[in-house]
Parts: sequence; C-alpha cells; structure tokens
Amino acid sequence: MIEKKIFLSEKDIPKQWYNLMADMPTPVLPPLGPDGKPITPDMLAPVFPMNLIEQEVSTDRWIDIPEEILEILYRWRPSPLRRAVYLEKYLQTPAKIYYKDESVSPAGSHKTNTAVAQAWYNKQFGIKKLTTETGAGQWGSALSFACNLIGLECKVYMVRVSFDQKPLRKAMMQTWGGTCISSPSDKTEIGRKILKEIPDTPGSLGIAISEAIEDAVKDKSGETRYSLGSVLNHVLLHQTIIGLEAKKQLEIAGEKKVDVIIGCAGGGSNFAGLSFPFVLDKINGTKIDIIPVEPEACPKMTKGLFSYDFGDCAGMTPLMAMYSLGHGFIPPPIHAGGLRYHGMAPLVSQAIVEGLLAPRAYNQVKCYESALLWAKTEGTICAPETSHAIACTIDEALKAKEEGKEKTILFNYSGHGLMDLLGYERFLAGKLVPYVLSSEEIAVSIDKIKGQPKAEIRKSGKW
Amino acid sequence: MIEKKIFLSEKDIPKQWYNLMADMPTPVLPPLGPDGKPITPDMLAPVFPMNLIEQEVSTDRWIDIPEEILEILYRWRPSPLRRAVYLEKYLQTPAKIYYKDESVSPAGSHKTNTAVAQAWYNKQFGIKKLTTETGAGQWGSALSFACNLIGLECKVYMVRVSFDQKPLRKAMMQTWGGTCISSPSDKTEIGRKILKEIPDTPGSLGIAISEAIEDAVKDKSGETRYSLGSVLNHVLLHQTIIGLEAKKQLEIAGEKKVDVIIGCAGGGSNFAGLSFPFVLDKINGTKIDIIPVEPEACPKMTKGLFSYDFGDCAGMTPLMAMYSLGHGFIPPPIHAGGLRYHGMAPLVSQAIVEGLLAPRAYNQVKCYESALLWAKTEGTICAPETSHAIACTIDEALKAKEEGKEKTILFNYSGHGLMDLLGYERFLAGKLVPYVLSSEEIAVSIDKIKGQPKAEIRKSGKW
Repeated sequence: MIEKKIFLSEKDIPKQWYNLMADMPTPVLPPLGPDGKPITPDMLAPVFPMNLIEQEVSTDRWIDIPEEILEILYRWRPSPLRRAVYLEKYLQTPAKIYYKDESVSPAGSHKTNTAVAQAWYNKQFGIKKLTTETGAGQWGSALSFACNLIGLECKVYMVRVSFDQKPLRKAMMQTWGGTCISSPSDKTEIGRKILKEIPDTPGSLGIAISEAIEDAVKDKSGETRYSLGSVLNHVLLHQTIIGLEAKKQLEIAGEKKVDVIIGCAGGGSNFAGLSFPFVLDKINGTKIDIIPVEPEACPKMTKGLFSYDFGDCAGMTPLMAMYSLGHGFIPPPIHAGGLRYHGMAPLVSQAIVEGLLAPRAYNQVKCYESALLWAKTEGTICAPETSHAIACTIDEALKAKEEGKEKTILFNYSGHGLMDLLGYERFLAGKLVPYVLSSEEIAVSIDKIKGQPKAEIRKSGKW
Repeated sequence: MIEKKIFLSEKDIPKQWYNLMADMPTPVLPPLGPDGKPITPDMLAPVFPMNLIEQEVSTDRWIDIPEEILEILYRWRPSPLRRAVYLEKYLQTPAKIYYKDESVSPAGSHKTNTAVAQAWYNKQFGIKKLTTETGAGQWGSALSFACNLIGLECKVYMVRVSFDQKPLRKAMMQTWGGTCISSPSDKTEIGRKILKEIPDTPGSLGIAISEAIEDAVKDKSGETRYSLGSVLNHVLLHQTIIGLEAKKQLEIAGEKKVDVIIGCAGGGSNFAGLSFPFVLDKINGTKIDIIPVEPEACPKMTKGLFSYDFGDCAGMTPLMAMYSLGHGFIPPPIHAGGLRYHGMAPLVSQAIVEGLLAPRAYNQVKCYESALLWAKTEGTICAPETSHAIACTIDEALKAKEEGKEKTILFNYSGHGLMDLLGYERFLAGKLVPYVLSSEEIAVSIDKIKGQPKAEIRKSGKW
C-alpha cells in the first residue's frame, strides 16, 4: 500500500535554514539607494531590526534556526508531504505527484513560517509593534498570529480588492489581536494621495507596502518596524524549511530523485522555500526542472523586465534588481491576491536570469478549472494562488503521460482556499474573466522604469 | 522532547467500527411507529437504504469497514492526535491535554467520516441522490464532498440562521457539486407551512430534517434517499473510528490510561465517535469520566426529558427514546449551529440514563472566551461547536491544578472555525449574548411531549 501522507517527526525538523546567496553562481546584485549606490545595512535600520538586516545580507550557507522559533513552529511543523494518488489516477498519468502541505499552519499558508521568525527577531531587538501589508490576507493573518504568540502589536494594510472580497480575513486577524485596515487608507500620506487621484482603485501590494512603511518610519519612538511577507532574502531564507523537510520526507517515501519542482510565485517566497534546496542540487549538477508559476494578469517573470526597480508603489524602498512590471503597475483584480505584485524576489529573479528556473504563466480561469478538478479528486479546496501550481502540475503530469515517461513531480500546496470561496462561487457561476494582459499594456508600464539603473549580471551560462 | 503531534500510519487504521449496541448494559429501547409499536426495518425503507438499516439495528460488536471506504478516508485519516502543551503551560496545569484533530478533513470536521460511509452504502444500494439537512454547514459540506467522490447527487437544506451567517458554506458545497437551500424553503409542504406561520423564523435542524425527508420520500423513482448527519446508531457507529484511532495513538504516546473524555454534543455523533470505545472500557470496569457538552441555549441532556419523541419538527420520523426538549423546540440563534438540535442520540441518551456519561452545559460567551484563549495559545481557530469541548477541557484542567492531581484529558477537536469567523467578530465586538434558557421556557416546550410513550429502562445502577 502506498502511504499518501508522509510525516516527519518533530525531532527530525531541520535545525538550519538554507541560504542560496552562498551558492548563487554569480554574485547577487546589491540593493541601491536614492543616489544609485549600494545601500549600507544602517540605511535599512529605520525599517527593519538589525538582526534581520544581517540575515538579509548574509552569505552564510546555513543559518541556525533558534530553538524558540522551532518551539512555535512545532504547532504545525514538520508539515506533511502528501502523494496525490487520486489526481494521478484521474489523469491516468505515469507521473508521481507529491505535494508539501503548507495549508496546515494555523493561518492557513506557508506565510506563518517567516511570520514567526520575523516577529521573534523583532522582539529580540526590542521592537514592540510591526506594520505590514497583505494581499489575499494570508500574510496579514500569519503575522497577526505570530505577533500574538510572541507579544507584539500588529497593524495590517490590506489591499482593498481583497479586503472587500474576503471580509472574514479581518475577523481572523482580530482573533489573533491584529488590526486590519483597507488600503489605500486615509491613515497615511501616500494612501490619501492615491485615494484622491484614483478613488475607485482596487489597491495593490505596492500601495499597501508604501502605507505600511510610512506608518512604521513615522513612529519616532523607534519601537515600530515594518515586516514584509515575501521578496526579501531573509524572508525566502525562513521558507527554506519547507524544501528541507520535503527532502527528508521524499527519502522516507523511497524517492531517489525529483524531476520537476513547481510553486506559484507572487513575491517568490513559497516557491523559493520549496525549491531553493533543490536549486542547490541543480547547481551541483542534478538534472531537475524548477518552475515558478505566475498569473497571466501579472506576468513579471515571463513578460517583465529584469531591472532595478522599487519594491513599493511610492518608491520608498531601495532599488532592487528584479523582474518587474514597473512599480506603478496595478494588476487586474484577480482572486489570487497574493500573486498581484509587480516584482519578483531578487534571488528568484537572478536564478531565472541564470537559467536555473523556467517560469510559466497561466490565466485564472484555467487555474480555477484545475482547482476544481483538485477538489473533486484529492478533495481539498486550495487557495487561488496555489491553483497556479496545480494547473502547472496537471500540465506536467499530462506531458509525462503523452511521453509515456515515469516522472516525479513535487509542488508546494502553499495554502487552503477556505477563506477564498467567493472566487470559487464566481467561477462556478461563469463570472470570472481570464485577465490576460496585452503586450501594449505591459510595455506602457515597463517603459516607466527604463530610466532606472540597468541590472546586469554576467551569466555563467551553465544551465 | 514531547512530540506534540502523534500520527498513525495508514496501514494501522482501524479496520472495523465499534458498535456500543452490543455492550449497552440494558437493551436499547426500539424506535416506535405511529401506532406506538416498535417499527420494523422495512418501515424505514423509503427513507434509508436497507444496508444502512441493517447497520442501524445491528447488535454485532465489530462491523468491518469496507476497503473502498478506507481508500477514501485515507485522504485525511488517520487524523492526528495532538497534545495541547501550549494551553497546558498557559493554564499551569498538571493535566496532560490531548485532542483528536478532526478538523483536518477536507470539509473541516468529523462529519466527513459518516458522510463517506453513508454515500458509499447508498451507492451500493443503487441510490442516485441524497437529501439532507445541515445546521452550521459542516454536515452539508461533508455530504457534498462524499457524494462528489462517490458519484451521487446531493441536496442540502441549511438552517436559515446559519445560511445567512455563513454564505461561504454554500459555495463550498457547490464546489463539490452539492446544492444548498435555505430552510425553511418554499420547496416543501412543511417549509411553506412554517414560512406562512413564522415568516421570520431562524429555522431549526428539526425543520430542515422534515424538509429533507419530505423531499426524499416524494421522489417516486425510488432512487432518492435521505441521509442524517448524527443521532442514529449507524451514524455514531461510523464515527467510532475516531476513538479507535485515538486509543492506538495514546499507546504510541505512552499513555496507559485516560481520566477524562470530552466532546461537544449536538446530535451526539462526534462525542460518541471519540468516547464509545472508552465507554466500553468503563463498562468493563475502568474508572473514567466521560462528558458530553451542550450549549445552555439547547440543554436537552442537562434539562431535557428522557422520553419518546420525534427526531424532526413535523413528526415524520419514528419516535425515538432520547433526551429531548420537545421536537417543536426552536433554539436561540447561537453560532454553534451544529448544537441547535432538540434531541440527543438514543445511544448517548441511554448511556446518560445508565450513568455512564456526565453531561454538562456552557453558554456561548464562555465558550467563545475559551475559543479565544485556544487561538491565542494553541494557535488554531476552532468551530463554535468545538469551543464547548474546549471550555469544559479548560475547567477540567483547572480542577486538576486546584486538586494538584496529574490527569490525562482527551477531547475531540471536532472541526475548525474558518467558516465561522463572523461569530468571533461579533464576540470580539461584545455583541454576543449568552442565551441561557429559563426553566419556564424549557418546561413549556417539554410539556408538549409529555403525552408521548414513556421511555423506561431498568438501570443496572453500576456507575
């Protein structure tokens, strides 16, 4: 009998995070300040605590996970690795489909992994309050959860379209003591400015980030910091526990190799968390396809520009070298709110340029079709973000069938969709549009960042 | 290190259900027909398939679980047994608190266990469509899920107050192909009658059951049956997999005995599922406190009458010997919709009369306080029904602390509350009332069933 759930005991949880910075074939391009020069750690000090800034710039390959953080993670970690035998059977594929189930965390997604770490490091540094943004609400819930356990105040700016679509997310954050505000809001200068210019804007992650940073740096007590749920190196680092656990679990399942790794990618953190330990294998010569999946409504990896750009809408962050659609880009209101971000994590972006990753884009109608097939075979209801990984997994499994090849696929089941059922309802009622952007629409937005410093790296050209 | 999650591998899943009918100290009183005489199995044939009717009346101690049912259950079973170390620490209690986590099922609660079994037996019998009622929506979701996997149509009458409070439940059922209708509805005679008499009724499980049965028996093709999510012997039987798994897991955890078993009880199925295998131990001489917990807004076990009464509002079911508040009783609109039922499962009721169980009642404000403490320590958001079990668990853990006694408590975490966050929001806003019923209100409702046949059993008086 094939066990469909592969558990790892708590004593076998990884005790270190993996840092891809140590192994990236070419050095990662540094963030730049307003003067176009690489920023120094102290320039980030008003926004992040120094212990996290140190992680952000660290090139150590392995970084110890503090025991106190593990003690909190044990509530749901190690998360199960599962085998999707029911979907395999339905597809009549020779492929084996494994998935890492990050939906089991109390807040419902992988976001909780870094939320706990960030809250803990901030607390260690003497911080009393965190501000943040959230798209679909997964990140805001996760940080509220973590702040509650660790003893910090938490204030969340939630992208308006998601705030309106998912009112219960607010209640969830409140249950863990967090405060949730629709963004753009009248609480910040940038929020008021945008509300005046575009009163009916659906909002964007870029805007919400600007509001949260403004809120944090305005607090002159020095006891408030900002927390980001994706994109940055230290956030991706905290997520690598996913892939490291998965490796141990694949071994338990008797799998000697994986052929395809898949994850949806908004800012890049769940994708990086699963894949980076396998990217290391690829760098070391293992043959493996690694696919980040994005929505066609926000196609920075497949149609964006690799360039220096701001992480937020207002240009408050340093310039980062990344795939971007332009920091002013406001994506259509797709249900996968967590994928509505204009840029991609610098580490993921550089790995794409290096040829280590092969990004792909799907539209939300195809993704909901895949989510529905998943619900009707495997049984669970996935997050709209996760449905992008499932759509790609199904394509890869069908390709294996066509080619008559055995193949082992691993994807990240980044979160459940129990708070996102409105999207399913609208899909079932035939009310969803695919939102595929035209090249012209993309070009207009990208043109605006062509004046930024060029992001150039010398590729090793190996992959 | 204490492992906080105790897993059982799929190959060790229990292969038989446990039937308390075989061991009840005094014979269980039979259901009665309209003539006051015990009904015969064929009288139930228009409502249930004969294979389930056979289970309903079986006195075999162990009943094999068909392999095909196990194959579906493996999606989430065996469910984890967890240790609530974080709550223990917060309470500074010497008690060990274990809980069986039934929230991991795709539909979010224990209900899925019997849903799969019932759908499977109906399919075997040649049935094409099931009708049912649902309170909080857990049962309707579970049956939609099961029918989808097994290939049956599913139609759900959902109690109006819950339908309005939890619109996303409808989308969930739809995702699995189910149809969901607010009850009372204009689809049935009884629904139309009640809508005319009490247009603004919040509805009740008793009303919704009447509608679903009427819908099933009206279909003259003979291909529709009714499915009940609790109360009946065969439903409780299917849930015993919970307690049987828990026993194996406690052994893995090194626990030689359990002192207290706790479960919330609406119709009685999650409570019975966890506790009945331990009731057998108690019958065989083990000292153990077994506590079903109900809301003070619907206190049939603590303030109701042990009597013959109908299972539904319209009197369409046979008369069953059970604790009841009267089949016309419409409980206040508490958020724990799954506990808003006027009666208690005959098997649970008789075990209470026998002295094997010690029921307890809590009001919803105390329960939400407990749920919030749980969310802030253990981290997860429980269903409002489950919060009743948690409130009782906290009391028992604090009692152990007062008495300075080590004690092992096991409760059933019957479901998550991610679809019920409105209740949390209202609680946090101070808008929830406790809804404690007065003795007069209860007496008025009970008086109406005093003309029913008396339910008398000779107690063994051992416990």
